[in-house]
Amino acid sequence: MKEQMMKTSIELFGNKGFRSTSIQDIVEANGATKGTFYYYFKNKEGVLVQIHESFIDHLLNGQEQIMQNKQSTNHEKLYQIVETLIRNIRSNGNSAMVFFREMRHLSDEKTAAILPKRQLFQENIQKVIEDGILMNEFRQDLRTDMLSYAVLGIANWSYFWYEPDGEVKENELTDIYMSMIFKGIEGE
Amino acid sequence: MKEQMMKTSIELFGNKGFRSTSIQDIVEANGATKGTFYYYFKNKEGVLVQIHESFIDHLLNGQEQIMQNKQSTNHEKLYQIVETLIRNIRSNGNSAMVFFREMRHLSDEKTAAILPKRQLFQENIQKVIEDGILMNEFRQDLRTDMLSYAVLGIANWSYFWYEPDGEVKENELTDIYMSMIFKGIEGE
Repeated sequence: MKEQMMKTSIELFGNKGFRSTSIQDIVEANGATKGTFYYYFKNKEGVLVQIHESFIDHLLNGQEQIMQNKQSTNHEKLYQIVETLIRNIRSNGNSAMVFFREMRHLSDEKTAAILPKRQLFQENIQKVIEDGILMNEFRQDLRTDMLSYAVLGIANWSYFWYEPDGEVKENELTDIYMSMIFKGIEGE
Repeated sequence: MKEQMMKTSIELFGNKGFRSTSIQDIVEANGATKGTFYYYFKNKEGVLVQIHESFIDHLLNGQEQIMQNKQSTNHEKLYQIVETLIRNIRSNGNSAMVFFREMRHLSDEKTAAILPKRQLFQENIQKVIEDGILMNEFRQDLRTDMLSYAVLGIANWSYFWYEPDGEVKENELTDIYMSMIFKGIEGE
């Protein structure tokens, strides 16, 4: 029921907005009682926090697995991290949009609990680039923090326009992105 | 007064959200009357539309000037377009955020009036890349539409995290981005 309530809330927040959605709306959409709601969530803000925590935890888990693989080059790891973000649009794209739009409704305290996780995701990308520089896989003349934001920007912006069921498949999109990131558009 | 009302509305929409801001709030923040408001805007939605139209028109004008310069290579044009987006964060970053978050409050009709302008901005980037391929400035094996989204993603994502008064200046950020886009992080 908790998962179901979060799923319905993503739809409601997405359509009506966070402020205009009431706990009663969430309860009714699930054929549940307010008692059930309060069993799982402290308040409406709590739902928003959990939607995003579940979103970012899922991505961080995937990233950790990629990073811990001792067989992979950093080149491969960076590819796989971007691939994870692109593949995640199909299943969790709406959740990302809701959080992004509604984040300002969270108290500083709640936001503070989530930001370190977002930051960790970025820092992990930066670490892969830095490890790749040490291994002579990547050039060393560009700031790795700014590069990590560039890579994140390409992948995250896709949440705003990319249609996973359209003409370009996830693996093709990832290939194009990574070819640009690794080799540049000037080519050899 | 119109410009001033738009400026105040960007702040109000940014802080309180579009739905929770009343026309009365906008009027009071400007020491104006509702009559003045309705002289300039049809309704609250009209303010949101004009905020974004003014934002995108400004960027499109800059882009057109860059594209019409017959002295520039496509390499230079692409650099300058990204530079325009990065430099614009300082003056118009809040306007971009407000529009992005509140866009779902616009009717389909209003959105339809704005989307072609956003699309034109992307298509112009794609055209610069395609012209660059014809001139042998860029490699021809990657889909130019996807590349234009990648370039836009890097620049647009910066609106979410970049602090123009921080350690990294606009020109340095643009240099890092464009070096990655042109040459890739593997380098020579």
